[in-house]
Parts: sequence; C-alpha cells; structure tokens
Amino acid sequence: MSTSALFSPMFSTPEMLMAVSDASWLQAMLDVEAALAAAEADAGVIPRDAAEAIAAACRADLFDPAPLGMAAVAAGNPVIPLVEALTAAIPPDAAQFVHFGATSQDILDTAAMLIVRRALDRLLPDLDAVAAACATLADEHRATLMAGRTLLQQAVPITFGLKAANWLMAVIESRARLADLRQTRLAVQFGGGAGTLASLGDSGVVVMAGLATRLSLGDPPMPWHTNRVRIAEIGSALAIAVGAVGKVALDVVLLAQSEAGELAEPAAPGRGRSSAMPQKRNPVGAVAVRACVLRANALAGLLFAAMAQEHERAAGAWQAEWEPLSELLSVTAAAFARSRELLDGLRVNADRMARNLQAGGGLAMAEAVMGALAAKAGHTSARATIRAVSLGAQADGVPFREALLADPTTRASLSEREIDDALDPAHYLGSTNAFIDRALAAYRALR
Amino acid sequence: MSTSALFSPMFSTPEMLMAVSDASWLQAMLDVEAALAAAEADAGVIPRDAAEAIAAACRADLFDPAPLGMAAVAAGNPVIPLVEALTAAIPPDAAQFVHFGATSQDILDTAAMLIVRRALDRLLPDLDAVAAACATLADEHRATLMAGRTLLQQAVPITFGLKAANWLMAVIESRARLADLRQTRLAVQFGGGAGTLASLGDSGVVVMAGLATRLSLGDPPMPWHTNRVRIAEIGSALAIAVGAVGKVALDVVLLAQSEAGELAEPAAPGRGRSSAMPQKRNPVGAVAVRACVLRANALAGLLFAAMAQEHERAAGAWQAEWEPLSELLSVTAAAFARSRELLDGLRVNADRMARNLQAGGGLAMAEAVMGALAAKAGHTSARATIRAVSLGAQADGVPFREALLADPTTRASLSEREIDDALDPAHYLGSTNAFIDRALAAYRALR
Amino acid sequence: MSTSALFSPMFSTPEMLMAVSDASWLQAMLDVEAALAAAEADAGVIPRDAAEAIAAACRADLFDPAPLGMAAVAAGNPVIPLVEALTAAIPPDAAQFVHFGATSQDILDTAAMLIVRRALDRLLPDLDAVAAACATLADEHRATLMAGRTLLQQAVPITFGLKAANWLMAVIESRARLADLRQTRLAVQFGGGAGTLASLGDSGVVVMAGLATRLSLGDPPMPWHTNRVRIAEIGSALAIAVGAVGKVALDVVLLAQSEAGELAEPAAPGRGRSSAMPQKRNPVGAVAVRACVLRANALAGLLFAAMAQEHERAAGAWQAEWEPLSELLSVTAAAFARSRELLDGLRVNADRMARNLQAGGGLAMAEAVMGALAAKAGHTSARATIRAVSLGAQADGVPFREALLADPTTRASLSEREIDDALDPAHYLGSTNAFIDRALAAYRALR
Amino acid sequence: MSTSALFSPMFSTPEMLMAVSDASWLQAMLDVEAALAAAEADAGVIPRDAAEAIAAACRADLFDPAPLGMAAVAAGNPVIPLVEALTAAIPPDAAQFVHFGATSQDILDTAAMLIVRRALDRLLPDLDAVAAACATLADEHRATLMAGRTLLQQAVPITFGLKAANWLMAVIESRARLADLRQTRLAVQFGGGAGTLASLGDSGVVVMAGLATRLSLGDPPMPWHTNRVRIAEIGSALAIAVGAVGKVALDVVLLAQSEAGELAEPAAPGRGRSSAMPQKRNPVGAVAVRACVLRANALAGLLFAAMAQEHERAAGAWQAEWEPLSELLSVTAAAFARSRELLDGLRVNADRMARNLQAGGGLAMAEAVMGALAAKAGHTSARATIRAVSLGAQADGVPFREALLADPTTRASLSEREIDDALDPAHYLGSTNAFIDRALAAYRALR
Repeated sequence: MSTSALFSPMFSTPEMLMAVSDASWLQAMLDVEAALAAAEADAGVIPRDAAEAIAAACRADLFDPAPLGMAAVAAGNPVIPLVEALTAAIPPDAAQFVHFGATSQDILDTAAMLIVRRALDRLLPDLDAVAAACATLADEHRATLMAGRTLLQQAVPITFGLKAANWLMAVIESRARLADLRQTRLAVQFGGGAGTLASLGDSGVVVMAGLATRLSLGDPPMPWHTNRVRIAEIGSALAIAVGAVGKVALDVVLLAQSEAGELAEPAAPGRGRSSAMPQKRNPVGAVAVRACVLRANALAGLLFAAMAQEHERAAGAWQAEWEPLSELLSVTAAAFARSRELLDGLRVNADRMARNLQAGGGLAMAEAVMGALAAKAGHTSARATIRAVSLGAQADGVPFREALLADPTTRASLSEREIDDALDPAHYLGSTNAFIDRALAAYRALR
Repeated sequence: MSTSALFSPMFSTPEMLMAVSDASWLQAMLDVEAALAAAEADAGVIPRDAAEAIAAACRADLFDPAPLGMAAVAAGNPVIPLVEALTAAIPPDAAQFVHFGATSQDILDTAAMLIVRRALDRLLPDLDAVAAACATLADEHRATLMAGRTLLQQAVPITFGLKAANWLMAVIESRARLADLRQTRLAVQFGGGAGTLASLGDSGVVVMAGLATRLSLGDPPMPWHTNRVRIAEIGSALAIAVGAVGKVALDVVLLAQSEAGELAEPAAPGRGRSSAMPQKRNPVGAVAVRACVLRANALAGLLFAAMAQEHERAAGAWQAEWEPLSELLSVTAAAFARSRELLDGLRVNADRMARNLQAGGGLAMAEAVMGALAAKAGHTSARATIRAVSLGAQADGVPFREALLADPTTRASLSEREIDDALDPAHYLGSTNAFIDRALAAYRALR
Repeated sequence: MSTSALFSPMFSTPEMLMAVSDASWLQAMLDVEAALAAAEADAGVIPRDAAEAIAAACRADLFDPAPLGMAAVAAGNPVIPLVEALTAAIPPDAAQFVHFGATSQDILDTAAMLIVRRALDRLLPDLDAVAAACATLADEHRATLMAGRTLLQQAVPITFGLKAANWLMAVIESRARLADLRQTRLAVQFGGGAGTLASLGDSGVVVMAGLATRLSLGDPPMPWHTNRVRIAEIGSALAIAVGAVGKVALDVVLLAQSEAGELAEPAAPGRGRSSAMPQKRNPVGAVAVRACVLRANALAGLLFAAMAQEHERAAGAWQAEWEPLSELLSVTAAAFARSRELLDGLRVNADRMARNLQAGGGLAMAEAVMGALAAKAGHTSARATIRAVSLGAQADGVPFREALLADPTTRASLSEREIDDALDPAHYLGSTNAFIDRALAAYRALR
Repeated sequence: MSTSALFSPMFSTPEMLMAVSDASWLQAMLDVEAALAAAEADAGVIPRDAAEAIAAACRADLFDPAPLGMAAVAAGNPVIPLVEALTAAIPPDAAQFVHFGATSQDILDTAAMLIVRRALDRLLPDLDAVAAACATLADEHRATLMAGRTLLQQAVPITFGLKAANWLMAVIESRARLADLRQTRLAVQFGGGAGTLASLGDSGVVVMAGLATRLSLGDPPMPWHTNRVRIAEIGSALAIAVGAVGKVALDVVLLAQSEAGELAEPAAPGRGRSSAMPQKRNPVGAVAVRACVLRANALAGLLFAAMAQEHERAAGAWQAEWEPLSELLSVTAAAFARSRELLDGLRVNADRMARNLQAGGGLAMAEAVMGALAAKAGHTSARATIRAVSLGAQADGVPFREALLADPTTRASLSEREIDDALDPAHYLGSTNAFIDRALAAYRALR
C-alpha cells in the first residue's frame, strides 16, 4: 500500500511493492469476482456465458484505481465502486450476474488471502535464504572464538557459530509458523450480506467450495467476516519472524560498532555512506531491518486491536486492517531481504573477535578459572576467591591473569599452567559443538 | 503478579492469581533448581546426596519473597538472591552444588515455562467450556431468527445459532493454537553463562535432557536465551484467544443494550448493580472481558517489542517480560472465566430478536425482495427499484412492506403474496444450517 | 506517504495526501537546503552567489523521487542521494557549498518539522470545524431529551446537547495541545555529523539561528537528533485528538444503529450504500473515523517505541519514524475531515430520542423516583424499594410506571401525580444547562 | 497495583508501591466520599452532622480491600461494594447521605486524580534530580572528549558534556509537560448517573466546585466520564518522560559495554553480580530503566486505546484503565529512581573515552581533515580524496594518519603539521560549548 517512491524502497522490496500494489489488489479482487462467477456457473446458479463474460472483464488494466479509491470514501470500501465499474463494463445480460450473492467483504477478504499467499510465496524464499546463511555461518564458525555477552558485558567465551545457530533457531521456528499458516489458514471468505449466503438459496456451500477450489484456498466451515483469528495469526506470525531477523540485525549493529569491529556488512560502492562524514560505512542493512521491526510490531498490534469486530461486519475495525496488512507485508519483505543480503555478504573478523575476548585481560574466563579452582577448593570458596580477584583486577586495571598469579588463595590450589589452561577459551566451550549440530539438524529437518 | 486485592479479582481468577503468585513463581524456580540437581546427579556431575539435600530445601514456604524482591534491585533479577538464600539453607557440602552450571535466566525462563504450562492447564478447560457453550447455543438457536447487522445496521436475517457458530469458530481456532503451543513449544532453558554450558564440560546436553525429562518440558536443540520466539508465540496466542472471546463480549454488550434487549447476562443478586441507578443490571461479565482484551493486546505487544534481545542476554527486554507474562495469563484467565459464566447463563430473548428484525418494517428483507424481483425483472432493474423503495420507505417513515405494495414497478412483477413470501425471514436463511453443522463438526473434531 | 490510489483516499484527504507526498517531502528538504545556504551566506560562511545558485536549484520538480528512493536503500536515507543530485545540478563553484556543515538528519528532521507545520495548518481548521459543529449541537439541543447510557444500558435522562458538549470538551482540550505544539515545539534540527556543528567552526549557532528565522521554526537550545521528545509529543497529541473525534464517531455509530435510530449521517446519493443490500445506508464517515483511530494509536505507539535512539544518531529507530509520521498525519486528516462532514450534516432524530427514553417504560427515571421517594422515606429504604420495583418490572415485562403504581411501599409515600412528576425526564436534568454553558464558554475562550 | 513482592521492587520504588497500593486507593476513594459529603453539607444539600459522620468513617484502615475486590467482580467496580461497606459503617441517619448524587465513576476517577497527583509529587523530584545530574555532567564534562557515534559508528568527536546536555534537554522537556499537567489538568470528576448531577437538582455545580476546592483539584467545565483526554495526556506524558530517561539508560548500557568501557554504573557491594560469572558487574540500573521503557510504552498505548468510551460510561475501556494507570506510575517511578541513582554515581572514564576516540587511528577526524583539505582544494575534490583515503585505511588496517601522510593528493595541499592540527579532536568541537551553555540556561530557566 505504502508506495512513496522516496521512502518506501528502504522499507520494502520492489517485488513486494508490486505484490501489494493497487494493480495487484485490483487484480486479486477481480480474480475473486471471476472465480465466483465461474463457481456459480459450475453450480448452475448463473449462466455459463455470463461467467465467461465476467471473467473476460476481470482484468485490472481495464480499471483505474484512482476514481475507485475516491468513490470508496462515500461507499465505505473500494469493492462497491469496483463492482459497479465491472458491471458497467459487461453486457447487461451478463452484468446482472456480477458479484452475485456476494458482499464487499467477501471480495476484499478473499483478495487479501490471495495477496497474503502471493506475498508469502515471495517472503519464504528470502527467509529460507536467511536461514541458510545462518546455517552456513553456524557451521563455518563453530570454532571461531568470541566473547559471549550478557547485559552487554563480556561473560564467557562462545563461538560465532553458536551465535549464528541461535539466530538460525529463531528463524526456523518463526518460518515454520508462517509456512503452516500458508498451508492451513488461507481460506475464502464467502458469506453474502451477513454470512448466510441467503441469496444463493441452497447452493451457498457448493459455490463456496467451488470458489475455494478455483482459487486454491481453503474452504472454511463457515464465513469468518467477524472472526479475525486468521488475520491476527498472520499478523503475529509476520511480526515474530521480523522479530527473529531483527535479533540478528541487533547483534550485527552491536558487533559492527567501531569499538567491537567483529562484523561488518558487505561492502559495496556507496553503501552506508554519510552525507557528512567521509569515513563512514554505516550498517545500513541492519539499520533498515531494525526500523522494520518497530513498524511490524505496531502493525501487528493494530491487527490484534482490530479483532473487536461487531456483529456480522465491523464498523471500523475491518476497514482498519486493509492498508496496514499490505504495509506489514512490505516491511516484512524488507526485513527479510535486507537480512539475507547482509548475512550473505557478512564479513566476519575472527581476529578482532579473538582480540576482544582477550581485551578484558582474560576476565571472560573468570567462570572457567572458578571451576578449576572449585575442583580443588570447593565451589563456595572458589566463587568468593575469584569474585574478589576479578573485581579487584577491574578496579585496579590489572590483567586478570596477573591478578590470579598474584593471588595467594588461588595459587595455593592452582599452578601457573593450570591457570593458563583455565584461561584458554577454546577449552571452555562445553556443549557449543553439540548445540550447533542440533540446531543444524533441526534446520535440515525442516527442508 | 498483579495482585491488588482491590482491583485484580475483576481481571483474573482466584486460581490464576494463585498460579502466578509469588509463591508459585518461587516454587517453580525451586522446582527447576531441584530438577537440575537431580539431573546432574543422574549424569554423575554432582553427588546424589547433594541433589537430595538441595531438593529437600526447594520448598517455597522456606523463603520469604519480600527480601528476595528487594535484593533483586541490586542483583538485577530475583534468582540471584534466591540462589544465595537456597545455598545458605543447605549444608556446605551440598550447598556448593546448588545452581551448578546454570545462570539466572535458565532458572527464571524454565520456571516461566512451568508457570505457563500450569496456567494453560487452568485456562484451556475454561476456554473449552466457552466453546461448549457456543456450540450449545449454535445448535439450540439454529432457527432463532434475528437481524444480521453490518456496520451496526440491520442487513439481512440470520439466526442466533449462526452468530454463536461464528463465535465458536474463533474460539476453537484460537484454542487449537494454544493447545499446540502447550504440547510442542514449552521447553527448558538451560545454557549457563552464555549458552555453552561450559562449566558442565561434556555433560551439558545430557543434563539438559535430564532436566527436560524431570520437568516434562521439551528438550530444545539449544538454549533460547535471546531467541524469544517462544515467548512471543505464547503472548500472541493468548491475546488472540482473548480477542476471540472479546468478540463474543462485544456482541453481548451490543445485544444487551436497552434498545436491543436480545441478550442478557445471567442474573444473580447484586450482579451488575449501580451505585446510583436502582434499575441497572449492567453486563458486567462482558464489560470485564472487554477490559481484558485491551490489556491483553497491550501485553502481547510488549512481548513482541521485547524480542529485541542483545547477544547472549538482554539488557532490559528480557527483564521486561516477567511481570507482563504473569499479567497476561491473569487477564486471559478473567477473559475466559467471565466469558464462560456469561455464556453458560446467557439469557436469549428470542421474542425480542424477532421483534427487532421486524422493527424496520421488513427493511432487513430488502435483499430478499430484490432477489425475488430479479428473478422476474432482472438483477439490474431489481436492484435500482428496491434501493429506491427501501430508501424512500426510510425517508418517509413508511413500513417497507407498505412501500413495496405501493410501488408500481414492484407490483408489475410481484403479487402481494410473493412480496409477503419474500418478506419472510425464515425463507431467507440460505446456508445457515449448513454452516452451523460444519462449525459444530469442526468443534467435535477437536475433542 | 501511504498513497494507494485505491485505499488511501478513505484514510486521508486529498490535501493531506498532497501535504505528505513525495513532492512535498522533496520540496521541504530542498527548502531546508536553500535556507541553510542562505543562512550561511548571511553569516559569511559561504559566498552569497553560491547560496543563490543553490536556492535556484532547490525545486522539487527538478528531481525524480524514484531513483532517490532506490538509492536510499544503499545510502541509508534519501537525503544522501538528494544532496548528490542537488550538487550535480549546480555549477561546481557553488556546488561545493551544498549541504555545507549539515548531516542528512538535519535536513530530514527539519523538513519533517515543515511537513508537520503545514499539515497542522490543514488539520486545525478541520478540528475547529468539528468543535464548532459540536458547539452548535450542544447549544441547539440543550433541551433535546435522550437517554443517558452507561455500560450501554439506559441510565438517566440527559440531553443531546449535553452529549455534544462532552464531545466538544474533548475536542477543544486536544486541540489546545496541538495548537500549543504548533506554536512552541516545531524547531530546526541542525547539528552536523554528531551535533557539534564542528565544520562550521564558531559560526554554528549563528547559522542555526538564521536557518530557524528563514524557516520560521524555533531555534532550539541544541540539536535534538536523539532527543525525540518533540516527535513523541506530536505523535501523542495527534493520536489523542483522533481519539477525541473517535469518541464522537463511536457514539454516532451506536446512535445510528437500526434499533436506536437517534442519529444518522448526512445523506448523499450513494453514500453508505452496500454492494449486496439495497436498503443500507451505512454510517461510512464514522466508520472511517473509527478505522483511523486504530491506525493512529498504532502509529503513535510506534513513535513512543522509537524514542530509544542510540548515541548521536539511531540505528533504526529514527528511520522507523519517517513513513509512519506521514501516515499519522494522513489518518488524522481523515479522522478530522470525516468527523467534520458527519457533524455538519448530522441528522438528529429528537423524536426517536424521546421515544427510546420512554421505551423502557420509564426505567431510566428510576433514580429520579428513588430521589422523590427518599425525600419522604429516606434514602436507604427508597433505594431498596425502587431497586426491587425496577428489577421486578424488567423481569415481568411490566412498564415501570405501572409497577410503581402497584407497589404499596411506593404508594405509601408518593401519589400518582408525584410519581408522574418524578417520571418526567425534563424535570430531572440537574446541571445539564449549566454544564453546556460552561463547555460553550470554554470553547469561546479558545477562539 | 502490581505488587509482587518478588518482582515489583525492581520495577517500582517502595514509595510508589505505597502510593498506588490498595490502601492508598481505598483512602483516595474515601477522601473523595468525605469531601463530597462535606461539600454537600456546605451547599446545604445534606446535614452537616451527616457529613461529619461520613468523614469519620472514611478511613482506609476500617475496610478490608479483599472482600471489596471480590465483590467488585459482580458489581462491576470496587466502588459499589465500598459504598455499601461505608454505608454500613455509619449510623442510618447519616448513612443515607453517603455517596449522595455520585456514581461509582465519580469516586474512582477523582480518586485516580488524587493518586496521580500524589504520584507526580513523588516522581517530579526524582526527575528533577535526574536533570540536575545531567546538568552537572554537562558542565563538568564539557571538555571531556569522546567519540560521537551515529548508527553506532564513530562519527566525529563530541564531548561527554554535550551528550549529557542532550540527555538534559529531553528530561526537562518531558518534565515541563508533566509539571504542566500536574498544575492544569487534574480535575474532579463529578456527574452522577450520566453526567447531569440530576439528583442534586440545582446544586450540582456548587457541590462540584466545593468538591474541587476541598480536594485542591480543578473544577472542570463539565464531567469528563467518557472524555479521556486527561488520562491519555497523563499516560503519554509519563511514557515520554520514561522514554527520555530510557535514552540515557540506552547510552549508558552501550558505553558500559566491555569493549567501550567509557561509563560504569556506581559500584556497590553485590550490585550487578551474576549467579554464574564472578567477574560480572552488570549495569543493572540502566537495564531496569530499559525494561520500564518497554512497559511504559505498552501501558500508554493501552490508555490511548481506552479512549474509545461509549456514551456516558464505557463498557470495558474505562475499567481497563485502572490497574494499568497504577502500573504506569510504578514503572515510571522505577525509571526515574534508577536513572537518578545511576547518574548520581556515574563513573566516567575520560581516559577510555579519549582512547576509544583514537582507536580508529583518527578516522573520527576524517570530516575535520576533509574540511582542512577543502579550504585548499575545494569541497568536492576534498570529499572524494578523504573518502578514498579513509575507506582505504579501514580496508588495509592502516591508521588514518599514516594513510593521510602517504596520500599524494592530500599531501599536495596539507603539510604534516596541518594534518596533525586537523586530527586534533579538541580543535573540532564547533558549537559544543555554546550548546551546553544554552541547554544549561534552559535548565536553569525551568527552576
């Protein structure tokens, strides 16, 4: 929906802007009208040649969205003027069967399902590529040491592969839900005026089934005009998947800080440049993803709020869904595409990772040393000793190793060699490899 | 969490207030510590008798939450002082093995999974009861005529059973997701300092599996400390289910309006009374549900926003989840329980439904008459004719039937008897029965 | 920003779509560049003829937003390619002074202030017209009796004028804040690379003052690049004003219900028509307003979330503001314009109001009768008596007056005439007139 | 409201937990009842001795909130059972005048205003202390060089004083709004059943004025039962102020990163400790503030959503405000108090700031060097040259100074000494001092 030539490209992709364009929406609505007529002809409800005449006119390029959009202000939605325009474009004999038995919401909601499906068919490959990139990073960097950081403080060593595996898990978990919704929850909306399909007499459910078949959408037990669980599910699954890649972007932005320098976005001429500062190479991909996270959350929240729909058609909440749904698909597309780009070309500075891990003078190994000491002196005493030594080292600006060597309690139990062994991060990775393997196995199981 | 004696009862249930109480949280954390020690003993990581000593001390009634909560301000979370208190409560030999290899987040997140599971085990029966009540209403009132209303205007006739079936579908759809999350997504969190379980050497994954088994939680591929997909999924599924019952409450509030009078909440002495107006019988159940909807939406939105968690432990976003998760469970409990109560005792005024449907002088049958006329005069002409007659009748304050009888174009095609047939709502229900049957079948399939 | 030809007209106005169009944003940014150059020439920082050459090129029609928007993806914002294009459009001698000392955010944020000001200058007159319409309704209908409704139940009588006065107060309160922000909080953003204006040496504050003067914006104490209080204030004031008119729309939708029939939106050919139901005249204006409320709330929430901006320029949160700010202005415009239209032509059915008030058989007068009885029998006893009579009347379907006349306790204190006096709503309006007068006085004081 | 002994202390303060406790709410409601009775006695509406008897019973310690809260479930709000309990606690002669003319919402809303006022009277001093701490830092560190960072990349030099001045501005701007609301927008709610004060006859406005005087609250033009502008204003002003201190916390967390080390929270025994890692000193204050930001945003969003209140009393939206308002006050209190603590004891590592600024080998001075070069070779050429040199230096891992000295184009215009001059950050601070002075002046003007 949101198609500012100036701003929208950063927050969408060309493909998604097309997928949610006016032309796409118009065509989706017309596809529904054509499929409806065909299904009604199949069911003997309207003449076959009327259905064919209707289908022939159901081409978006025959309609100008601008006057339809203007007319929607008085009509209350754009389907009403579209149906009028479609009717006017067809010979009278057939024209009377346009939109037969349907109400505006049937067309718009079913079109939305088509839009969502087409959008998901564009989104999922990008999300798959994000997963693939994470999987590759997890595998390739399973032994690339770096600092694990909690509350943004160095904690204990991890590997970059483990971090990528954590990213991977969030991506595949959220991907599974989107794929599931794609398969099971996209269904036609067809209920007529108030959900009874009364004007179709006994043929309602047959026509609904035919409509579903022709559009390859689900045939739901009944219309869902004011049961917006589907829409809220789609909205939340999109926001959660954006949140999953947003976590990647957050870590990338942090690791690309000048003071960290562990990751950099792919270089390209002019990418990440500044209008003022010549040296800048801003992490523009991750930045865009983070902006999309804020927007996706707001849009998903709106779709939750819009579940409160009155009786058989809502007075406001339904209408509030239209543009935001397109916008949510757009920002999701940007979030996935930018994440894919940045991960595919991600530059990993393993050397800097190693140096940063040592920069605290080995403080990130305090827990490991405590463990080594505990094996000899018991946990309680070891904890007190190492806490005192490590806080003292920080206060005095002394490297942790030096402080340990100078600490009589520590030295009573540990030799210099034992201390150095305990200070080696490569010896203190625990289940890192196993976790990476398990995450990769989960990833492969999904394919 | 939210335990104002004065305000919380309206927005929770006694059972849920207990399920998310300080005592429950404390016990859940202690259950995790005990299970961890046991799993570590099983794996030969710590002595069996240490595990037993730890287990013996893991009783919430041994700890006072107040000083723990105060100490959490400086510590950064309540697990740290709890572990200290627990350690102090155990003989030194065993005490050193308390919390072995774990970090605070492991305990709090796994405890949260236990809390959520126990909460869902209380929530799902109430939601099932809501579904059962909807199913009963759908079946019993499948022929109870009422006005279908779109944009809060009378549209075409429906039955109250169809409306209840629509409620039912939303409830069972959202119920299915909650049940699915209950079965597949509640997993232990166990990673140690930064997700490597380094202090457990090679035993990490074995202990994690043992912990999962002992707590009957899932054994995830790897820790999910900053992969909050699970939490966001739970949050959104809860909010969507609250939205589903919120739609019921919205319709009930509207149909209970003095001017509609079609539904009333169950009567009980003092229920819905006013402090000022003696005649009032406010729909207090539905009102509380609607308040819960607003709150659940805000809380779910917060859990989305909290997905942005840095590195291996977040600096704010994780901490922001704690109280809101409990609060979300609380308001969900209220939403389900109040919905159940009001539906179980719902008073359906079928007579008023029928009268309201006629109150527009038959206007709600305009589409039906148009259909009858179209069969003789074609759709296009019929539409123009009936639109003119119906708008004229409204403008002039003339009953629709009279206006039809007085309209020469209509009368040229339809006899008085044909008009009366078309005006009979019972003849204009289309697929109503079929839809109800399908919704009931979907409901039964879930059980 | 959101310019779907098909959907956006319902959720904006033509004027606002233009005010936030790409052309407007481009021109606003170019206005800032031109004013900057001029202010720098004034301060002797750049040559006067360079400033004139720059000003001559600062015309939006010279630039195509599409390639700028595409280039923004790699650059990180659209200002960078715009500055490059502007530079390329100017002779080299002058070109080197384009954007001198500024950073992208300076241009975009200051342009945003211009956009907001121009938008407010369009929004406030519409909101004033809403206020004027409310004031007129309040005055004209100060004695038009209707039911006051609490929790959607008839409570005690009010007048429609009092309801309109309540609408009025919310409108003028929120209007005051918007006007105040318009006057005091729109300020230039000018800080250069990181807020020091370093490349301007000592001239920074002089140039900033000149820029502010030339653009008629405030000259803030210092740059506000990551102090987003202004933006959040604007966002919340807009959402609150939308909420104020949203309350009007909510009441209109409720009072326009078929069963209430007390208000109707202005009639116009085709307005509020249905694609299926010929008799429908949907309250499309109020419905659009309510959709705008949901959207404005989500957008304002996003602007709150976007306050978390890192260091001297945010990595995502700033970028997340751009399109949503335009969209918020758009939906606000729609909310105000539709509210104005519907109030200006609002059809008030005073007769129906009176009838509905009596429809409960006088139940809405229960408090009044209780008061009359209390004067004779004491409050406690009167309360119990009237509560029993009124609930009994409802249960038995007996008109309240009859039930009163038949109740011995009541009759022991009140004659039939006294009962009828107490049942007259016109006698039970308390401070209604005074409140209306005070609200109108507050309204007039603002003008 | 949210009073988990285990969790709430981190997200509130003891004073605020008391200010929004059940006891405080009860007392606030009782204060309103007592003041109402007194104002009515003043107006001659009820006997003076009845008012005195009522006042004597209006002590929170006489009432148990638990049964009132339970009774609220059926009643729909806690005021109804409270009024009943209060009535029962008073001799019958006086008891009949309890709550005379009022409705539940009058009591609860006016009590909320009292709660908000008392809360603001606790909040504002903490926010003032935050401002004072920022002002002190701004002044003391006006020359403490550090890297300005945009998109988390080093950009150009700033001083820590400038950063603190930016914090200060956001704090005082948001403080001004809170103080303004405190002075001008806290008003009594008094309307009776539906806003007419009908049961008070002509005395309504007199009693309302008396009530306002006695409670030192505003006397609004009319009741605001469903005009929630006030509540939304308070909610948004609180969230914005929390956002202002949240920005401080964000910067503190980032600057406290192990890799940055420029700031540290005040040290205290045990503060910021980890349950696993002995060396950790987590920035727990800032972390708590950031958690409060997420929560405050959600709560303010809820208060926006709750503006949609039907007719003369809402069916859900009003009720949704109660606990969240208290919770918002609580998390605001924590945000302010933790911010105050951390700023009062903030440890500024000026040496580390200087070293980090140099760590990029002078890259943060690229704009300055470009400026020096432009003065000789023109801006366009200088920009291209310095961009190439700076990107090349980064790619090759060569310090920027060396790369400059080795670059023939640069050297053609700049001597080594000129280069070194341009590389000195202290020479490149532009308006830094002026901005700090202006911010401090703005701060002083507020006092």
